[in-house]
Amino acid sequence: MKIARFVADGRLHEGILNADDRLQIAGSKTYAQDAVTWLPAITPSKSIGLALNYKDHAAELKLDLPSFPILFNKNPSTFIGHKGQIVAPPNIQYMHYENELVAVIGRRARKVKAADAYDYVMGYTIGNDVTIRDFVTNFYRPPVKAKGFDTFGPVGPYIVTADEIANPDNLNLRTYVNGVLKQQGNTRDFIYTIPVLIEYISDFMTLEPGDTIWTGTPQGISHIHPGYQLRLEIDGIGALENTVVND
Amino acid sequence: MKIARFVADGRLHEGILNADDRLQIAGSKTYAQDAVTWLPAITPSKSIGLALNYKDHAAELKLDLPSFPILFNKNPSTFIGHKGQIVAPPNIQYMHYENELVAVIGRRARKVKAADAYDYVMGYTIGNDVTIRDFVTNFYRPPVKAKGFDTFGPVGPYIVTADEIANPDNLNLRTYVNGVLKQQGNTRDFIYTIPVLIEYISDFMTLEPGDTIWTGTPQGISHIHPGYQLRLEIDGIGALENTVVND
Repeated sequence: MKIARFVADGRLHEGILNADDRLQIAGSKTYAQDAVTWLPAITPSKSIGLALNYKDHAAELKLDLPSFPILFNKNPSTFIGHKGQIVAPPNIQYMHYENELVAVIGRRARKVKAADAYDYVMGYTIGNDVTIRDFVTNFYRPPVKAKGFDTFGPVGPYIVTADEIANPDNLNLRTYVNGVLKQQGNTRDFIYTIPVLIEYISDFMTLEPGDTIWTGTPQGISHIHPGYQLRLEIDGIGALENTVVND
Repeated sequence: MKIARFVADGRLHEGILNADDRLQIAGSKTYAQDAVTWLPAITPSKSIGLALNYKDHAAELKLDLPSFPILFNKNPSTFIGHKGQIVAPPNIQYMHYENELVAVIGRRARKVKAADAYDYVMGYTIGNDVTIRDFVTNFYRPPVKAKGFDTFGPVGPYIVTADEIANPDNLNLRTYVNGVLKQQGNTRDFIYTIPVLIEYISDFMTLEPGDTIWTGTPQGISHIHPGYQLRLEIDGIGALENTVVND
């Protein structure tokens, strides 16, 4: 099941993508996808990101593989929906997309073992962990600013429930910038898999329903600028599209 | 006005501290302070901490003064109330309290100038930014784990509205550990004042009503262990008391 949040007819709705690729709400009313304003697929109480979680991306950045998960907060105040606008601040140089598989927690998770961790995942979506590397003066500095600008967290278009994703550790990701394929990867290159991350995080911090884990991005980042069109695809989920605009 | 959140008679209440030092709820019913279970003074949508914001603390850590505010997220999932228990995990050595003045945002703040920033502060409270330095392998690493354990964010006992704090930049802080004064400071040693911080943060990230800014801690951190009693005082606000227990 694909669960979306959107505004249509002046109201906020939660609906599912039906067999006709239309958004269907309770009572069976449906909307064409291009007739709605998409909201972030979810607005969690907290959101944990991975600074470096693909072997190929570590190589691209010439960084050693981390000996434990390098976590940061992707502030939910950054979240926007499918088709929303990413607002670029003035006078920056190194603004990047980061295509990421996002796991959505379904049950309160505290001290969960990896072997049980998938029982706590309700679904998956696509996240764009937009980052301005001008503000990453040290790779390990908390990226509150670098990743925290309003609109820097497109997430969606919808949540795909876990039953539809046979193996989260073997999904292809592709990012198109202005129609050109710029980033390709596969979640089999994860340094830390989703179950391992849930065990690591929930050992010290309770994860609540709706909380999200952004699992890092593979190699292939490149600069983006106002006017650019982004399309982030992940197999089995769909495509998250956003445009970059000036402030 | 001092605004507290607490549980009494099996219900969640918001109340004020009245002239008799009792907690008074709507309808004028009152409770003795020791007859309630205190909740965190606030549960924000996000909470921003300062890694290093006192000149004396920077000197204590032998670190240069930062050239811009070093921000991190103090996850609200850590928040507990006055008198609550801080749960220490096993097998750690360097667990510290950090006594901090916490500013509570009252109005949505976006691109606010420092000169106007106090208009956006509804009040202040005391925060204990509990930290395990075992997990701070690099001072600038995001401290999601080091500061993110459940219970590591005591905050309270209540919010003191801004009209009662004449000058947030001149408040004494004192921390007593098992009755012994261990930490003393004054907010006049801020590297970045609250208005400057609000300007800096709101320039890129919208602050919502209820969001908190933890303004950093002065010198005088020391190790704490299960069984320890903590009392954090800030002039004009009160005293936040918590005990450390084993997991």
